[in-house]
Amino acid sequence: MAATPDDDNASSAITLQTLGEFAVIDRLQDIAELGSREVQVSEPVVGSGDDSAIVSFGSAQVAMSVDMFVQDRHFRTDWATGVDIGRRCAAASMSDICAMGLEPSTLLVGIAAPPETPMSWIKEFFSGLVEEAAIAGARVVGGDLCSASAITISVTALGQAPKKGAVTRSGARVGDIVAVHGELGRAAAGLRILQRGLRSPRSLVDSYRFPRVDYTAGVRAREAGATSMIDVSDGLVADLRHIADASAVTINIDKDLVLVPEDLTSAASAFGLDPLTWVLEGGDDHAIVATFPVTAELPSGFHAIGSILKKGEISVTVDHLAVEGSGGYSHFHQ
Amino acid sequence: MAATPDDDNASSAITLQTLGEFAVIDRLQDIAELGSREVQVSEPVVGSGDDSAIVSFGSAQVAMSVDMFVQDRHFRTDWATGVDIGRRCAAASMSDICAMGLEPSTLLVGIAAPPETPMSWIKEFFSGLVEEAAIAGARVVGGDLCSASAITISVTALGQAPKKGAVTRSGARVGDIVAVHGELGRAAAGLRILQRGLRSPRSLVDSYRFPRVDYTAGVRAREAGATSMIDVSDGLVADLRHIADASAVTINIDKDLVLVPEDLTSAASAFGLDPLTWVLEGGDDHAIVATFPVTAELPSGFHAIGSILKKGEISVTVDHLAVEGSGGYSHFHQ
Repeated sequence: MAATPDDDNASSAITLQTLGEFAVIDRLQDIAELGSREVQVSEPVVGSGDDSAIVSFGSAQVAMSVDMFVQDRHFRTDWATGVDIGRRCAAASMSDICAMGLEPSTLLVGIAAPPETPMSWIKEFFSGLVEEAAIAGARVVGGDLCSASAITISVTALGQAPKKGAVTRSGARVGDIVAVHGELGRAAAGLRILQRGLRSPRSLVDSYRFPRVDYTAGVRAREAGATSMIDVSDGLVADLRHIADASAVTINIDKDLVLVPEDLTSAASAFGLDPLTWVLEGGDDHAIVATFPVTAELPSGFHAIGSILKKGEISVTVDHLAVEGSGGYSHFHQ
Repeated sequence: MAATPDDDNASSAITLQTLGEFAVIDRLQDIAELGSREVQVSEPVVGSGDDSAIVSFGSAQVAMSVDMFVQDRHFRTDWATGVDIGRRCAAASMSDICAMGLEPSTLLVGIAAPPETPMSWIKEFFSGLVEEAAIAGARVVGGDLCSASAITISVTALGQAPKKGAVTRSGARVGDIVAVHGELGRAAAGLRILQRGLRSPRSLVDSYRFPRVDYTAGVRAREAGATSMIDVSDGLVADLRHIADASAVTINIDKDLVLVPEDLTSAASAFGLDPLTWVLEGGDDHAIVATFPVTAELPSGFHAIGSILKKGEISVTVDHLAVEGSGGYSHFHQ
C-alpha cells in the first residue's frame, strides 16, 4: 500500500504497520523541524537520523540517544534472566553512543512494569543494567518507574563528544573500505534456537543472551579516521542502507570477506537455512560497521567486508547483486 | 506487608505492588551506587532522588530526567486528542527540569505503540510534544519507535545548569516559607469528571487535558533564592514529603492560605467530596512548590501556603495535623 504524507491525516487506515518504522520516522523528523523553527535554542550539531543526536551545552557537546525495549518483543523473561536482559538493554543503548565514535558515560532508565512483577526481577534487571554500564565506564544516574501491563524499558544513553569529533552516517566516500567490528548473525541464530524451544548449541544461545561489547571499538574507529559508522541493530544490510542513503553512495559487501563461524554454519544447516541470512539480516549482536579511507590502517578488531561505490540504483549490494528479502528487521512490518 | 531488602531475593511474593513505588526506587538507588563504585566517570552533581540528575560534561552541567507515560494509566486516547497527550507528556517531563530552577532545552522521545495505531494519532501526539517543547524554548532532537501492545511513551528532558545553580529537594531550612506556583487540584477534578463519563464543567476538564505551564517559574524561584523545590506530580502532600525527608524538616501547610477556586468547590460538592482532597492529593497540575527564606521576596506567581518547622514525627502536616489517606498518588499501590 503506497501512502503519501498527505494521506496520513485523512484516514485512520494508514497505520504504523502500513507505513513501516522508517517512513514513520521520516514524517516525524519533518514535524520536529517545522515545529522547532521558532525555538531560541541552537540546533543540534547532529540531529535525529543518526545513532545519537549531538547537542551543545555551553562549550560541551553531548551525544544522546534513547531506546525502548518491550517484553515479548525485544526480550522474554523465560529466555533470559533479569540480569541478562538489563545488560542487553544497557549494551544496545550504549552502542548508539559508541557508533558515533564516543564513549558512553551516563544512563537514565525508565521502567514500566506490571504491579505483580517480582521485586527480585526488577533488582536483577537493574543490577544487570548498572553492571553493563560500569563495564563501559558509565553510570545510571536516574530513572522513572510506573505501572503497565507489559514490562517496557526506556534507556537513554549519553556521552561527551570532542568538538567535531563524532562520526556520523553521512561521511562515507567512494573508494572507502567497509569494515565490521564484532560478530554478526550469532544473536539471530540464538534467538531462532530459543524460538524453537531449544537451548543449544549453547554458544549461539549465549550470544543472544549475553552482550559482549567492546565499548572502545567506536573510539578506535574514529581515531583511525572512520568516515562513517553505525551500530548493527536492525541487521547489517538494513543498517548499511542508512549509511548508503545518508552518504549518497552504494555499498557493496564482498561475500568472500564475510566471516561465517563453524557453529553458525552447522546451526543454519540444521534449520535448512543459509547462514549468510543471519549474518546479513540478524540484529542485536552489538556489532559496529564503519567506513575507512583506503589508506587508513584498520583499528584492532575490525575486518574489511566490502567497499563504497558510486551511488547506483540499489543502496546495498552483496557481490554487486541486490539482497533478497527485506535485509533486516523493521518494527511494525510483519 | 512489611518487607526488608533481604527478603526481596528470597521470594517472588515480594512484588512492585507489595513494596510500592518509593520503596522500590530506594532499593534501586542502592544498587546503582554499589554497582558504579568502580566507574571512572565522576559522580553526578545531583543524583537520582531529585527531580533531575545533574551531570558534568566538561565544564557544563546538564540536568536530565526521564518520564514514562502509559496508555490507560497516564492518558486515555478517548479523553484527550493526540496533540493534548503529546503536550501533557512534554510538560510533565520538562517540569522536572524547571523544578530544579532551570530551563529545559532538549527532549528525546521513545514511542512504543501497537502496529495498528493510526499514523494520524502518532503525528498528532508528536506535533503536540514538539509544540509544547517549543513553548518552553526546547527542541525534540531524537527518539525511538517500536511496537508494543499498549502505547507507552518515554520522554527524556535536559537543560543546562549554571554552576551550583540548581535547586534541589534538600535545602529547606526551619523558618522558610513554603510557596506554590500554579493551580492545584484542577487536573484531579477534571480526571474524576472524565472517569464518571462526564465532560463538564469544561474549565476543570480542560485543566486536565491541556497543560498551561509557566516554564520560567522555576528559574524565577531560583533567582529569588529558593532553598528547595519540587514539581507537584504525585500530589502536594506527597511531593512535599520528598522535600521534608530530603531536608530533614517538617512542613506545615496552613489551610487558610490554600486557594480553592469556586468551580473546584462546586464540582467537589457535586461528588460529595472535600475540594481540599483534590488540592492536597491531586497530581498532574504541573505546579511547582518551593521554599524561600522568610526574608525573600516571593517571585511573581508564587503564593505562600505554609512554613518549615523543626523535624517532628510527621513529615507534612496541615494545620499541624496529620493528613488522612495516602496524601497522593503512588504507582503500584491501589
